[in-house]
Amino acid sequence: MLVVMQEGATERQTEAVIDRLVKMGFTVHRSTGVVHTVLGGVGPVDDFDPAAFEVMEGVKECHRIVSPYKLASRHFKPAGTVIQIGSVQIGGKDVVAMAGPCSVESEEQIEASAEAVSHAGAKVIRGGAFKPRSSPYSFQGMGEAGLKILRAAADRNGLLVISEVMDQVQIPLLLEYADILQVGARNMQNFNLLRELGKTRKPILLKRGIAATIEELLLSAEYILSGGNYEVMLCERGIRTFETSTRNTMDIAAIPVLRRLTHLPVIADPSHGTGKRDYVLPMARAAVAAGADGLLVEVHPDPDHAVSDGAQTLHPKQFAELMKQMQAVATAIGRAA
Amino acid sequence: MLVVMQEGATERQTEAVIDRLVKMGFTVHRSTGVVHTVLGGVGPVDDFDPAAFEVMEGVKECHRIVSPYKLASRHFKPAGTVIQIGSVQIGGKDVVAMAGPCSVESEEQIEASAEAVSHAGAKVIRGGAFKPRSSPYSFQGMGEAGLKILRAAADRNGLLVISEVMDQVQIPLLLEYADILQVGARNMQNFNLLRELGKTRKPILLKRGIAATIEELLLSAEYILSGGNYEVMLCERGIRTFETSTRNTMDIAAIPVLRRLTHLPVIADPSHGTGKRDYVLPMARAAVAAGADGLLVEVHPDPDHAVSDGAQTLHPKQFAELMKQMQAVATAIGRAA
Amino acid sequence: MLVVMQEGATERQTEAVIDRLVKMGFTVHRSTGVVHTVLGGVGPVDDFDPAAFEVMEGVKECHRIVSPYKLASRHFKPAGTVIQIGSVQIGGKDVVAMAGPCSVESEEQIEASAEAVSHAGAKVIRGGAFKPRSSPYSFQGMGEAGLKILRAAADRNGLLVISEVMDQVQIPLLLEYADILQVGARNMQNFNLLRELGKTRKPILLKRGIAATIEELLLSAEYILSGGNYEVMLCERGIRTFETSTRNTMDIAAIPVLRRLTHLPVIADPSHGTGKRDYVLPMARAAVAAGADGLLVEVHPDPDHAVSDGAQTLHPKQFAELMKQMQAVATAIGRAA
Amino acid sequence: MLVVMQEGATERQTEAVIDRLVKMGFTVHRSTGVVHTVLGGVGPVDDFDPAAFEVMEGVKECHRIVSPYKLASRHFKPAGTVIQIGSVQIGGKDVVAMAGPCSVESEEQIEASAEAVSHAGAKVIRGGAFKPRSSPYSFQGMGEAGLKILRAAADRNGLLVISEVMDQVQIPLLLEYADILQVGARNMQNFNLLRELGKTRKPILLKRGIAATIEELLLSAEYILSGGNYEVMLCERGIRTFETSTRNTMDIAAIPVLRRLTHLPVIADPSHGTGKRDYVLPMARAAVAAGADGLLVEVHPDPDHAVSDGAQTLHPKQFAELMKQMQAVATAIGRAA
Repeated sequence: MLVVMQEGATERQTEAVIDRLVKMGFTVHRSTGVVHTVLGGVGPVDDFDPAAFEVMEGVKECHRIVSPYKLASRHFKPAGTVIQIGSVQIGGKDVVAMAGPCSVESEEQIEASAEAVSHAGAKVIRGGAFKPRSSPYSFQGMGEAGLKILRAAADRNGLLVISEVMDQVQIPLLLEYADILQVGARNMQNFNLLRELGKTRKPILLKRGIAATIEELLLSAEYILSGGNYEVMLCERGIRTFETSTRNTMDIAAIPVLRRLTHLPVIADPSHGTGKRDYVLPMARAAVAAGADGLLVEVHPDPDHAVSDGAQTLHPKQFAELMKQMQAVATAIGRAA
Repeated sequence: MLVVMQEGATERQTEAVIDRLVKMGFTVHRSTGVVHTVLGGVGPVDDFDPAAFEVMEGVKECHRIVSPYKLASRHFKPAGTVIQIGSVQIGGKDVVAMAGPCSVESEEQIEASAEAVSHAGAKVIRGGAFKPRSSPYSFQGMGEAGLKILRAAADRNGLLVISEVMDQVQIPLLLEYADILQVGARNMQNFNLLRELGKTRKPILLKRGIAATIEELLLSAEYILSGGNYEVMLCERGIRTFETSTRNTMDIAAIPVLRRLTHLPVIADPSHGTGKRDYVLPMARAAVAAGADGLLVEVHPDPDHAVSDGAQTLHPKQFAELMKQMQAVATAIGRAA
Repeated sequence: MLVVMQEGATERQTEAVIDRLVKMGFTVHRSTGVVHTVLGGVGPVDDFDPAAFEVMEGVKECHRIVSPYKLASRHFKPAGTVIQIGSVQIGGKDVVAMAGPCSVESEEQIEASAEAVSHAGAKVIRGGAFKPRSSPYSFQGMGEAGLKILRAAADRNGLLVISEVMDQVQIPLLLEYADILQVGARNMQNFNLLRELGKTRKPILLKRGIAATIEELLLSAEYILSGGNYEVMLCERGIRTFETSTRNTMDIAAIPVLRRLTHLPVIADPSHGTGKRDYVLPMARAAVAAGADGLLVEVHPDPDHAVSDGAQTLHPKQFAELMKQMQAVATAIGRAA
Repeated sequence: MLVVMQEGATERQTEAVIDRLVKMGFTVHRSTGVVHTVLGGVGPVDDFDPAAFEVMEGVKECHRIVSPYKLASRHFKPAGTVIQIGSVQIGGKDVVAMAGPCSVESEEQIEASAEAVSHAGAKVIRGGAFKPRSSPYSFQGMGEAGLKILRAAADRNGLLVISEVMDQVQIPLLLEYADILQVGARNMQNFNLLRELGKTRKPILLKRGIAATIEELLLSAEYILSGGNYEVMLCERGIRTFETSTRNTMDIAAIPVLRRLTHLPVIADPSHGTGKRDYVLPMARAAVAAGADGLLVEVHPDPDHAVSDGAQTLHPKQFAELMKQMQAVATAIGRAA
């Protein structure tokens, strides 16, 4: 904790800050400069808000110098986390593709999707049974029936299942049918949900919120890790900016930034990241080139009749082409796929 | 629904779009321009994604022309909604202040807060019993014990109670102790929670998410309204932008925009909107000048020792000054307070 | 300058940073904490990039602790700057209105505008002779002929003239006809232009760029001040965010933030800030309530036929109502208008 | 031009809109729906502001349906533009690297840079002679002396020269020494400069402003093209968002979006796009994987002593590694480098 006093701060003001730091358990080092006095607080205290000091009289600014997350940091665990599920490794040398429709709609649709994505080289089928929709008048998902369909199709095609959990009450159901539980962007800071997921022992894919900083994403991962569930993968899926030619602005740089800050695997979702089918392939290549450990891609046997997200969903043929090109890029940078 | 075809789109492409519109139940009007053909679809269908048409071959762009929300719109109900709770009216001539600490910490703290804010003219006491915190290592709230303290202090001081509900499982508890249930910014799109709140008959204060558009805020309100709970007030509390000198950027213009688009009362939260105590007073004046029906303000008997949000919390004396100035501005624009 | 070393940084890495700081002329204080070593550099050096240290091995983060602007800071000059032009004071007790059309179109239009805004209480007429337009096919302004029209109408109606300078070659022309030279948002970082304006002795109104931080606005003001021209006023006119229901998001909080950081007067432009006529009046009230020293408002005798910005331009009648309400708010907060 | 009337708009309101459209030269098609009346305007008029209709009574929203740029559009010229300078082709099969220091500092520095980047495979040397700096107290560039140094080093090493033009008065000087004139992000909407560059016949590299939409970038290109200079390349270099772990957020998706909308070559600048050396290599790979025609990279023989932008500048060795990996990715997607 560093507190920089304003130019001309009085001795009384400086001492008030020192007093408060000491009461909070910090040891204080004082350094008097030509212009500014700087107070360095060293201590066991992690849970405080630097802004509380910034509003004290005579204070110019404060900086927390210990990262607010620990278990998620690369410093805490220098080697990358590899999540092993059956024979699939996420975070290893292979770039893993997870693909399937936005929503589970019917047995036929899922069986066709599973066959197509498995044949193209994906290892995991995705599909939503509970759908968070911004309008109350939109399709809200098939629920447990959808999960059953997903599980059966996955088993027939040698795939794993990833599906979204929207609420803590849905956790037991998801645990029964899915291999990876997905937390959607809107729930990245649903802390009750995160805490409960920390008590499970299934891998979690945690999506970055559309207005979340990378640090906030890591703090949300920390909620899960601090509960004892260490199998968390992070997913970049686009942030909200002023640009409207894509649905979101995919922050590809978040991939190398996360690889530097954390040991957790990083997945990229070019479907939500762009919102338009035509841009999914080049952005999938870009994400892999930037170092992503996996891709999450929306594929549907008949995208034009998908009940949700059709605009960003690939035809199976387009997905097969994506896999081919993604593998070429992975190989070019020394990875496999 | 309007579909604009690209310059040079073929007849086959145009017909494919027409076919799809007709299959969805639209009646289609075709208008052929010098450069672009435009298809206007008229129909009973509300639940579709314009982007699904934008990826069709030959399509330049699509526009949904019916607002995706109905019950929340000013067109649906031209007169402003006035929410009556006991003798307090929200959305009427008076600007209503709701004030109190971020978190309930103790009986003494709440009693002191209730006395102070009531004395200064507030009608509602705020205080969190369940705290959404970005770090798992931060204080998480007193729970039901906190709600009891809040209720008792409110009753002793002739105040109403507003408190945040973070999860659908907490609804029964909140209904027992609070007069207004607050949905936090992080939960603005927790649709399961919104749907359950639509089944209650208590007033809801719905905060705008930090990356939510005004339209998305209205869609979230629609979730509650469509369940039959018509007592919803909307709260502007700052959005996330590139500017860092305030915690969020308070979108004051959202106030007149909302007053135009919806009949629901609009509340402003200058504490979260700025994140810094010194800016709360001028921004409270600005919000009222822009037309807000109420203010939500953080006040604590000893802000420097508040367990959360201390930096943006006012001393009781500062709050009394805020009320005085806010009333002067309200009077200047023809309202009371 | 503060450099925080990473947890586990080696002695060699720490010394490399110390060496570099010393070579740049800093005196270095070292403070070794339990987790992090912090280096405080004190020195006469202002012109350096903290990021250059952040990429050194073993460095976690850097903070510049001396503000990069000086002459613009409230610390340098605690009393607010009052700009006196004839009998008009900007930055004094009165809130000053500057109003008129976006573009100078004709003598009749300007004469009608000047009469109307003067009659309603404005002190300055605005009007563009050179128009920055995002499309090369749009109207680009009347040039010197426009300035002549503006000057004559102002003189007949007892008004001052403000007009935009787009390029350093236009400065002599503007100096001849205008009382205040306006720098548009797109030119806020046209440093050649700013430097040349620093050599003039006419008041400058500097608009905030749509993606500029408050600190960058102050740095741009510093360019002008450091040339010896101390009469600079700053103008908040909206920033670009994800919200689209207004043309820009008006950052009303920038007004109290600027009043705290700088002694320069602060003007608000609710016309560009919102882009829509209906929101200009409530946002003008809000800006004054937040502490603005003046308003810049687009007014046209026939807004529906304005060659530019008609959507955000007021009718003279609407402007008269705005002045009345603005004056009521100014009085309510202890100012005049 | 499409105008959607509000639900319940009166006949009088609708006719006022039709009148105005007709007066502007549009032919109007009227389509009356169950809820909304839609007016389609077809006409030769390009220069108007849709917002001017949106503020008319009874109007819900307006959409311009003809793109405001023409010469820059892929529809106007379906085949990609290839800019040939000597033996170098930009926009062809090869991915072209342009590299060198941020600022020209000395003959030795530039000679060392030229040798290094040429040896690694770059075709163009970059270096600024005039530096736009946000602080007036920072180094402002060597001017013409710097351009001479750049030209000489380029000639000795078989390279082309790209350098930034900050102001229209500098154009003649730049034309004498440089092969490509760069327009910086801050000048993307300096329309006087763009217009003058349209009169030259040298290739222009136009950088996207940090808050510019893709459409605005294309409109700025249109300024140059409409002057008769058809050799324009566009450069994505990061936009400003809320994320602070990188200096800007590089909008990699802008690359495929631009390739779809325009025939002009697209260059990526991962140095400014990230602001940090460690992220330049992965983002260079990502940009090429997404389809960029070239890269603009900052390289300096001694980055830690660069006078500007050192933090994002590569060592020659790092640049050589970047070229190797970039070439591998280019090959993987069927291009050369």
